[in-house]
Amino acid sequence: MTDRVKEILSWYKSENAGVLTNMYRLLMQGRLAGTGKMIILPVDQGFEHGPARSFAPNAAGYNPHYHYQLAVDAGLNAYAAPLGFIEAGAVEFAGQIPTILKLNNHDTLFDETDPLGAQTATVEDALRLGCVGVGYTIYPGTMDRRVLYEQLREIILEAKSVGLLAVVWSYPRGSQLSKAGETSLDVAAYAAQIACQLGAHIVKVKLPDNTLEQDAARKVYEKYAIPRETLTERVRHVVQSAFDGRRIVIFSGGAKKDDANAVFNEARAIRDGGGFGSIIGRNSFQRSHAEAMELFDNLIKIFKGEVQ
Amino acid sequence: MTDRVKEILSWYKSENAGVLTNMYRLLMQGRLAGTGKMIILPVDQGFEHGPARSFAPNAAGYNPHYHYQLAVDAGLNAYAAPLGFIEAGAVEFAGQIPTILKLNNHDTLFDETDPLGAQTATVEDALRLGCVGVGYTIYPGTMDRRVLYEQLREIILEAKSVGLLAVVWSYPRGSQLSKAGETSLDVAAYAAQIACQLGAHIVKVKLPDNTLEQDAARKVYEKYAIPRETLTERVRHVVQSAFDGRRIVIFSGGAKKDDANAVFNEARAIRDGGGFGSIIGRNSFQRSHAEAMELFDNLIKIFKGEVQ
Amino acid sequence: MTDRVKEILSWYKSENAGVLTNMYRLLMQGRLAGTGKMIILPVDQGFEHGPARSFAPNAAGYNPHYHYQLAVDAGLNAYAAPLGFIEAGAVEFAGQIPTILKLNNHDTLFDETDPLGAQTATVEDALRLGCVGVGYTIYPGTMDRRVLYEQLREIILEAKSVGLLAVVWSYPRGSQLSKAGETSLDVAAYAAQIACQLGAHIVKVKLPDNTLEQDAARKVYEKYAIPRETLTERVRHVVQSAFDGRRIVIFSGGAKKDDANAVFNEARAIRDGGGFGSIIGRNSFQRSHAEAMELFDNLIKIFKGEVQ
Amino acid sequence: MTDRVKEILSWYKSENAGVLTNMYRLLMQGRLAGTGKMIILPVDQGFEHGPARSFAPNAAGYNPHYHYQLAVDAGLNAYAAPLGFIEAGAVEFAGQIPTILKLNNHDTLFDETDPLGAQTATVEDALRLGCVGVGYTIYPGTMDRRVLYEQLREIILEAKSVGLLAVVWSYPRGSQLSKAGETSLDVAAYAAQIACQLGAHIVKVKLPDNTLEQDAARKVYEKYAIPRETLTERVRHVVQSAFDGRRIVIFSGGAKKDDANAVFNEARAIRDGGGFGSIIGRNSFQRSHAEAMELFDNLIKIFKGEVQ
Amino acid sequence: MTDRVKEILSWYKSENAGVLTNMYRLLMQGRLAGTGKMIILPVDQGFEHGPARSFAPNAAGYNPHYHYQLAVDAGLNAYAAPLGFIEAGAVEFAGQIPTILKLNNHDTLFDETDPLGAQTATVEDALRLGCVGVGYTIYPGTMDRRVLYEQLREIILEAKSVGLLAVVWSYPRGSQLSKAGETSLDVAAYAAQIACQLGAHIVKVKLPDNTLEQDAARKVYEKYAIPRETLTERVRHVVQSAFDGRRIVIFSGGAKKDDANAVFNEARAIRDGGGFGSIIGRNSFQRSHAEAMELFDNLIKIFKGEVQ
Repeated sequence: MTDRVKEILSWYKSENAGVLTNMYRLLMQGRLAGTGKMIILPVDQGFEHGPARSFAPNAAGYNPHYHYQLAVDAGLNAYAAPLGFIEAGAVEFAGQIPTILKLNNHDTLFDETDPLGAQTATVEDALRLGCVGVGYTIYPGTMDRRVLYEQLREIILEAKSVGLLAVVWSYPRGSQLSKAGETSLDVAAYAAQIACQLGAHIVKVKLPDNTLEQDAARKVYEKYAIPRETLTERVRHVVQSAFDGRRIVIFSGGAKKDDANAVFNEARAIRDGGGFGSIIGRNSFQRSHAEAMELFDNLIKIFKGEVQ
Repeated sequence: MTDRVKEILSWYKSENAGVLTNMYRLLMQGRLAGTGKMIILPVDQGFEHGPARSFAPNAAGYNPHYHYQLAVDAGLNAYAAPLGFIEAGAVEFAGQIPTILKLNNHDTLFDETDPLGAQTATVEDALRLGCVGVGYTIYPGTMDRRVLYEQLREIILEAKSVGLLAVVWSYPRGSQLSKAGETSLDVAAYAAQIACQLGAHIVKVKLPDNTLEQDAARKVYEKYAIPRETLTERVRHVVQSAFDGRRIVIFSGGAKKDDANAVFNEARAIRDGGGFGSIIGRNSFQRSHAEAMELFDNLIKIFKGEVQ
Repeated sequence: MTDRVKEILSWYKSENAGVLTNMYRLLMQGRLAGTGKMIILPVDQGFEHGPARSFAPNAAGYNPHYHYQLAVDAGLNAYAAPLGFIEAGAVEFAGQIPTILKLNNHDTLFDETDPLGAQTATVEDALRLGCVGVGYTIYPGTMDRRVLYEQLREIILEAKSVGLLAVVWSYPRGSQLSKAGETSLDVAAYAAQIACQLGAHIVKVKLPDNTLEQDAARKVYEKYAIPRETLTERVRHVVQSAFDGRRIVIFSGGAKKDDANAVFNEARAIRDGGGFGSIIGRNSFQRSHAEAMELFDNLIKIFKGEVQ
Repeated sequence: MTDRVKEILSWYKSENAGVLTNMYRLLMQGRLAGTGKMIILPVDQGFEHGPARSFAPNAAGYNPHYHYQLAVDAGLNAYAAPLGFIEAGAVEFAGQIPTILKLNNHDTLFDETDPLGAQTATVEDALRLGCVGVGYTIYPGTMDRRVLYEQLREIILEAKSVGLLAVVWSYPRGSQLSKAGETSLDVAAYAAQIACQLGAHIVKVKLPDNTLEQDAARKVYEKYAIPRETLTERVRHVVQSAFDGRRIVIFSGGAKKDDANAVFNEARAIRDGGGFGSIIGRNSFQRSHAEAMELFDNLIKIFKGEVQ
Repeated sequence: MTDRVKEILSWYKSENAGVLTNMYRLLMQGRLAGTGKMIILPVDQGFEHGPARSFAPNAAGYNPHYHYQLAVDAGLNAYAAPLGFIEAGAVEFAGQIPTILKLNNHDTLFDETDPLGAQTATVEDALRLGCVGVGYTIYPGTMDRRVLYEQLREIILEAKSVGLLAVVWSYPRGSQLSKAGETSLDVAAYAAQIACQLGAHIVKVKLPDNTLEQDAARKVYEKYAIPRETLTERVRHVVQSAFDGRRIVIFSGGAKKDDANAVFNEARAIRDGGGFGSIIGRNSFQRSHAEAMELFDNLIKIFKGEVQ
């Protein structure tokens, strides 16, 4: 165990040894083991966007084993997916890669301004499938977010009691936010804070833009001149908003970018801003296996500081 | 046990021996035993459409024993029905034909754009009635689908723990879909994916048309030129969307077709596209027993490849 | 035990001996014992319509003992009522008349187009009160019927496990049905089918009129020329719709008819159409005791075939 | 309902209507219906003494249906047996004869001075099998009788809450009683009292001899000159000891007597001493069916006072 | 389904359709399918006697797959074993051979005169492992048999409610029985009766010798001249003692016999005496696979009446 991992574990002292053990497994896995940085492969887009939109660009991805194998091959820290995808490879890949079971999902055959999603798996499933943790998406800003927060409350309580990590996807949405506002800095920071306050061990947010959504927040950002010009600064602010960096915050890459350099630049900002890593889905599995391997290789080198 | 059955069972490694045993029973039953193909007789139309619309064309079908006997006589793989119909013959036909208890049902005395149905039986009922599995209908695309997904989550978890198969009818509906969209290819593929991600062992969808419903999907289908001219190609795409063929997908025949050849052509497309079989209700029990037997005989020969 | 009772019991083979015992008790009680026909006295109108509307025509009926005694005096098969009425005489009349505890009720101080009612007693109550079964009203056609069906599912499962009969009142209602449609033939037959599919042992529906409500159904009734001119034919169709006569269907008399001959004509139609009997509330207890006794005497003679 | 039955029911006012209903059923069954007297056929000797000792004298008795049919044919009040025998005919004879499920049994492959027996069925079984009550044997006088009393406490509490009768066989045994003492008058009366105090609805004891076992008791019997010369007097004393006749006490016939007159004389004593009837096992089923029918016919006439 | 299987199922009318379905599976499996006869391979000797005593004679038997495969190869009706052995092949052989999970076991590292054994698996295990039933050994005649009977009571109640068969090994033992007495005719018949009364669906006893153990029984056997000279006659008596043949009784072969003809002679006696088959452990798996196959082939021919 490295000092960095020791330090990170020290932030979670109220958790039981089971949770800490799974946190250790996550942080000591793959090529980033011991660095305190992590890359997670999430594949819930089949449920969220539909299969063709997700897997047609690289048809190998229709097969659930493909993603397990990609996470193993690339030396990532974990693989996260809904029940069906996890079940479809849990035995074949048992132990080879830490898994995070996404406990709720939302499909877009009905598209809401204020989405709710549905809980589609349970903590009990995560135990029987050997996962290190469970994942859950909240939509701060939506009208019925209390349904989500309360469902998450039960999940987090149960997960912690059985030693599982709680990973929260915090995605601002809803009828009172502008589309741009969903990735505004004030909103992203707020979303990170909410997830931490709900008891998340690991929070995943989108990389924030240099915009501000809420008037009440804007006044403060301007009054105190919170640095937000560069992505690095904005990452730093979000990390600060997650209990001053005492909770793990990772950032998502969003839709596939044809130019991999855009992904790398984001990774540099995450690294330099004190972020803990990336959660890279479409940008990897919608590329060919070789391209994805190269992309992950570069990301890992960036996070390890082996390249600038 | 044939190699094909062995291969199919290998896709469900995360399931316990109880589930695999019931899967084996289903796949080794009747005239298609061992082929990996299956035909299931579903009779829930009395509940879904009303008795006269369902049984007047062949009044023998008012009697619940008729359907049990038809499934036995024709050498099918299973019989699926709501609680009342299953109870009405479970003792008399115990062991003679695997049964699937439909756990939810929807009637059309009130017709909703966004139907919900109701859970009308339980996993406990399925055990006491000797069923090999439970069935559940989801309506992806409907406003409150989360209610269905969450009810199904509990059912699937419980069913798997006691060794029962989970068969999911995935029928897109809802106020954001056009009528045509309910059988569009993108929507059908999406519906299959959702059912698989929810943990279904067997997914039943409608045969898809060569239309595309969602704009975001259309772009992808066109960009990647996903073949969809023939029904065979469309079946293949749906099967691919069900974990690259690692989950059993069967197709429903829909309303009674006067020309049996239409049914046979669909069966050929299912077979040639890699589908796992049919669920044939009205097209069989609304014909006379003799005609139904002949229809099933032809379907079985098609699935076995004995006829072109 | 008569051959007819033996035959009826044979339709319920999936039920345990406790259920069969209570079915036997119901069928072997009173003056119709052994005939396979039954008359049940239901008195839930105090809850459903209010006391004055129910009991003012014959003020003796305010007293719960009156109805118990009437059922005993007339040699009926059972007495059905809500918790309060059953409790008020259960000890005094213990064993003298089989009782059915109505587990849900609906009052009309608030009158809905899509009524839900409320569960007002439990299976546990039925056991402690010595009932042979429980009753439950569903309103097929109402918007939230899933609430009813799911409540009934739990009740039926529990009732069967402890050997109690499940008697379902199936009353079509709701905002998509016309007033006439509530007693249309297609709707009545559909309502009977739904109750049977939900697992009811005994179904109670209203006598159907010679009208058809749903367009999709009308086509079928006309195409197959389902006989429906006479009440006898319509009864026969409803009985057929209840699993081809393999579930007990009884018919309600509705509001009090001044001319008892109208009641007798209905009874003749029930008898000749293969119905299993009547559930006669207001037409009896809103008459004087003497008139009610005479009415029941005639009905019993009709059902026994002693008079034409 | 007769006045006598009404009077008997009045002694059990603390019981719920369910218990009273089953008591009514028991008292209104068969040829003794309404008299307040009862004859029960108990067949647990297969378990207690072994099959050959029980059934070899009349080999028809190996078949569990034989005893059901005998109880029906003879017009008895009830049939009592262990789980296996009740299950083996519960459906075929459902409703035809009230049944009492013996919840504990003792075999004699190991013969103890202080027997305990074992609970071999449950109140839940009694409900699913449609029984009117449960039976339980206590052995007052044995070292570990507290185990029995406490097991019975739970059973009685549960049985009463679901409306079942509690019938207690009270058989004094144990290392501090002489063999003769097991049927001594003081001991028999004491055994009846204990069963009543434990909450039994119906108590079954052996007919007492004119002996006294316990010194402390003997002094009292002699001081107060309690009449005990005749069997009638001894029956009267036992009945008095059962809450002054406010609990039903019935008497067992014991081993088969070749001379049926001995059985009849006992019945006369039971009748004249105010006993409530007999529980006649070996004396009936070890005779031929014809002889058993004649024996029961005579007993019934004696209990009804039709013969002296 | 054959008439004989239909007849056997008719004896279990109080059971739910789930139990009947598993009974059908057992009776319709293997080379004896439909005959009403069965051969079960039990392998609990590793637990009961230790591994070397059990498997050294044919070392292939140390491997749990060996026994599964042997049961499949020989066309037997079922394979019965403790938790570990069942788990070790439940997935590999799922569906190929009905399995019975032995829920209690007894080892002989401590050897008691009055053995108790221990419950080592549960009904829940049987469901997850896809078994058709559960097995349990009682030791009638032992001092603390009540512990066994009461444990079995709970198991049987739960097993039946979820549709599993209850198979009871009834082995008389204990400090009041002589060694010879354990297989005396009176004791064997008593043991069969007890198991049936406890609610067993299938009873397994040892083949009885022509001795009588209990004095009280001897008098009856002699008085009624119960035929017992031949093994066939003794089998007939045991079958009669199992509810006059209305419960399935099978017989164990005991320790390995070098001369297979001894096994065949026993099978003839079982067949001719109306027994339902054999449970053959050591006599098969302690032989080589080839010899075991030949032995089973002969047994099957004897039970089918193909050879004398």
